[in-house]
Amino acid sequence: MIIPTYDDMLAAHERIKPYIRRTPIRTSDCLNEIAGCELYFKCENFQEPGAFKVRGAANAVFGLDDEQAKKGVATHSSGNHASCLSYAAMKRGIPCNVVMPRTAPQAKMDTVRRYGGRITECAPSTSSREATFAQVQAATGGDFVHPYNDPRVIAGQGTCAREFIEQADGLDMVVAPIGGGGMISGTCLPLSTLAPETRVIAAEPEQADDAFRSFKAGHIIADDAPVTIADGLLVPLKDLTWHFVSNHVSEICTASEQDIIEAMKLTWKHLRVVMEPSSSLPLATILKNPDAFKGKRVGVIITGGNVDLDKLPWILG
Amino acid sequence: MIIPTYDDMLAAHERIKPYIRRTPIRTSDCLNEIAGCELYFKCENFQEPGAFKVRGAANAVFGLDDEQAKKGVATHSSGNHASCLSYAAMKRGIPCNVVMPRTAPQAKMDTVRRYGGRITECAPSTSSREATFAQVQAATGGDFVHPYNDPRVIAGQGTCAREFIEQADGLDMVVAPIGGGGMISGTCLPLSTLAPETRVIAAEPEQADDAFRSFKAGHIIADDAPVTIADGLLVPLKDLTWHFVSNHVSEICTASEQDIIEAMKLTWKHLRVVMEPSSSLPLATILKNPDAFKGKRVGVIITGGNVDLDKLPWILG
Repeated sequence: MIIPTYDDMLAAHERIKPYIRRTPIRTSDCLNEIAGCELYFKCENFQEPGAFKVRGAANAVFGLDDEQAKKGVATHSSGNHASCLSYAAMKRGIPCNVVMPRTAPQAKMDTVRRYGGRITECAPSTSSREATFAQVQAATGGDFVHPYNDPRVIAGQGTCAREFIEQADGLDMVVAPIGGGGMISGTCLPLSTLAPETRVIAAEPEQADDAFRSFKAGHIIADDAPVTIADGLLVPLKDLTWHFVSNHVSEICTASEQDIIEAMKLTWKHLRVVMEPSSSLPLATILKNPDAFKGKRVGVIITGGNVDLDKLPWILG
Repeated sequence: MIIPTYDDMLAAHERIKPYIRRTPIRTSDCLNEIAGCELYFKCENFQEPGAFKVRGAANAVFGLDDEQAKKGVATHSSGNHASCLSYAAMKRGIPCNVVMPRTAPQAKMDTVRRYGGRITECAPSTSSREATFAQVQAATGGDFVHPYNDPRVIAGQGTCAREFIEQADGLDMVVAPIGGGGMISGTCLPLSTLAPETRVIAAEPEQADDAFRSFKAGHIIADDAPVTIADGLLVPLKDLTWHFVSNHVSEICTASEQDIIEAMKLTWKHLRVVMEPSSSLPLATILKNPDAFKGKRVGVIITGGNVDLDKLPWILG
């Protein structure tokens, strides 16, 4: 297991700068009043491919030597990692093969194709995606860029929190969603060096609360096929992300499907940004546990904005 | 008729700085590819009350002497001016009375009430709103802050274009929606001094094309009760805004209701910002007239983001 370092994150930032945006911070007096704290939202949904995952993906793709680059990259992903890896591969002009669950949102599949990624569909379970991926990788020889359990990816994701603490002073805590733990690990990486007093809190769907249970148990617990509207948070922790979660995360909070939908709609209304259900977990848990956040300066990472605009969860179709 | 000057705009900017945001610019490689030009979107939907109109409203409210301020302000508006005037009045701690058509979106009425504005409803026509307003103003003595035909308001709106050309270099043109002409006049005001080579283009719904017809005829033509999904663009030009439109606007383009809805959805999808139908007119006209914009650097003002999230025009309810 190679644990990415602070210097790996700095090197990643230099490497990926031409391919990422330094995303802005949004605030809303109305949301602050509703939540009873000072909220700072980092808009990673404003990355060109719509998610923070372009940071880790670009770090992996642009770190390949020319020989491996010719064979391209390959991955499995519920959506945004697939889009972002395709985007980075397109920017370098190399092939990208991705395995996606056939239940992934249409918007995410469209994005992968727009960037030239080749999709192989699988069943919506961890076991199916891993089996299908083994076949695809054997056929193509693409370098496997895991969506989160890869030091290059975590170092890349870490550049987001580095920017965040430069843009918003004195955050008491940063809250980010947790699925496989790539964003949370990437958040711990710079904060443990630059702002050790800033607590890192992970937010997870009740219906896919494997990280919450792992955190309590002290070892990784993985579910095979959880079901939640937060389609980016279906995957389990792995050894690398567990390292960061078990050593640096202060707390893992959970929220119900209804909490997620309400927080999503509130954000669209008051911040006026389009974000996906997975990105609602932080606000949903903040609103559910107001005493824990009261009066604090709270950073929230809006992880992605790729959502089917024809199927909004608060409108019955 | 008092025509606001460049110096009035500069004074407005100083006066309103504590109450407005210097809104960011958003870009999207995907949208640029679709449109065939380089698009720069200024996100005035990210103002706290969700629209550029906070600039003009704050300039009027904070320019009042203490004596008049006690009696407060009053206006009629299809929505965003009402919200923004209420917001500015709340910030100064003075009363605000507004006349709104009973067809105004619920989201806009809610915003007015959230900021303490008092609403009197009228029929959805220019004649009804003006008659109802006369009664309200006589009863309260509030200073009339017209939504656009007021030099204080136009000077305030002008601060948006001033920021825009500081943030995005060498724009060939700026495209903004036109209803009564407040934003367009405010755009002409700084550009005619700071960037006279940048063309100002107004975009209007086909179903409320009174400015387009006025521009061709060389005099103001007013419709009493046009019907369009672009609920912020129902009002006619007045003498002050006609001054700017007739002297400084290069062109007025129109778009159909379907064009407006498609441009709105495209913006939500690729820029990942929530904006209202009225703000779609620029992109709708750009997509409709690709040759006129091909290869150009085009600034677009996203005027507002107050929209009923339960009633999106591309989803049949």
